[in-house]
Amino acid sequence: MTVSNMSFRDAIEARRSYYNITNKSTLSNEQLEQLVSDAIKYTPSSFNSQTSRAVLVTGEKNKALWSAIWEAHKANLKPEEVAVYEDKFANSYSAGYGTIVFYEDQDAIDTFVKNFPIVQYTIKDWVQNSNGMAQYIAWTALATHGMGANLQHYGQYGPANAEAINKNLGVPSGWKVPIALLAFGVPTDIQAPGNPAYPKTFQPLIEGETGRVLVRH
Amino acid sequence: MTVSNMSFRDAIEARRSYYNITNKSTLSNEQLEQLVSDAIKYTPSSFNSQTSRAVLVTGEKNKALWSAIWEAHKANLKPEEVAVYEDKFANSYSAGYGTIVFYEDQDAIDTFVKNFPIVQYTIKDWVQNSNGMAQYIAWTALATHGMGANLQHYGQYGPANAEAINKNLGVPSGWKVPIALLAFGVPTDIQAPGNPAYPKTFQPLIEGETGRVLVRH
Repeated sequence: MTVSNMSFRDAIEARRSYYNITNKSTLSNEQLEQLVSDAIKYTPSSFNSQTSRAVLVTGEKNKALWSAIWEAHKANLKPEEVAVYEDKFANSYSAGYGTIVFYEDQDAIDTFVKNFPIVQYTIKDWVQNSNGMAQYIAWTALATHGMGANLQHYGQYGPANAEAINKNLGVPSGWKVPIALLAFGVPTDIQAPGNPAYPKTFQPLIEGETGRVLVRH
Repeated sequence: MTVSNMSFRDAIEARRSYYNITNKSTLSNEQLEQLVSDAIKYTPSSFNSQTSRAVLVTGEKNKALWSAIWEAHKANLKPEEVAVYEDKFANSYSAGYGTIVFYEDQDAIDTFVKNFPIVQYTIKDWVQNSNGMAQYIAWTALATHGMGANLQHYGQYGPANAEAINKNLGVPSGWKVPIALLAFGVPTDIQAPGNPAYPKTFQPLIEGETGRVLVRH
């Protein structure tokens, strides 16, 4: 992965959702390829099954991808929703420098299950856990390089959306469901952690027996 | 989170599975609570739904937890498997300093779906993505402090296992499935990245149209 000295501790706080992204990048395409490759490489997977996949899309191909998604997705919308989503597609997602599309390779999963039948019922969740980790690593790595990103899931709103994405990208047939789309670019505003202009609300953490984290010492 | 200056880039490579863990910790219990709280706090979630939960278990309560899991799990095993798993439970999982148990709060998910019915079919995978991210942050944060960990999924091998864990930990009724158990402690050996004594096999990354990462520029 391209080098940034930001600490792990700072990085997890610096990673946020940035919706106002531009078609600029602090990294070259070669550096972005390295970043995505390393995210996929270092993501842990159950029994080292390594079933996660990703596509890095930039430039005009990024615009074409989001156009293809829009054409499929607008059929899912109510008339009063069209303008709202058209604006998101035009001024947020496709306005970025690129998109990383995350998949799980169903052919690889099927082979793995054949070799380890005991995991047949649990592997579905495990690959989603692992894919989330890959999404997180790429997202946070981009943040360490001053890039903003937002994670979208338009591949899952109906099979037509998935087909449009898969056809546009020309992925192998085993890559069936585009699990997440990470749209990224240099943000126009800095939604820095702690910036009172961009507060984020957190639910209670350790708080007796009603919080999100319990302790058993 | 407790402070470590390890860079994000170094941290993603330093995080590995360590099975030989001891009952020592480089962090105090208070620092571990902070680490787990910050992992849960900074993990992104769909629509900021914040449904992930965790339990930090240490010391004698950690040993009791793994004993409870063993009692339930051994009923799932073939006679010839018992000795192998008994060794893993005794000398790996329960030999560590503690365990972080990850959940999704089904009550919180149900409330979220009630407010956003459109996500009813997709939320199941999204919460698994998000939970994987929380697991990853805690695992990697521990690595930045010189701790080793391995991620187990014994809560999913049959309902009796889940019940044993939930009863032992006394979690709220909405915390139904113990998604992952991160057993941790100071490792007895250093499985450092690049150490030829502990090679890890990676599948091809960018490699024409047969790799795990495709590029579309």
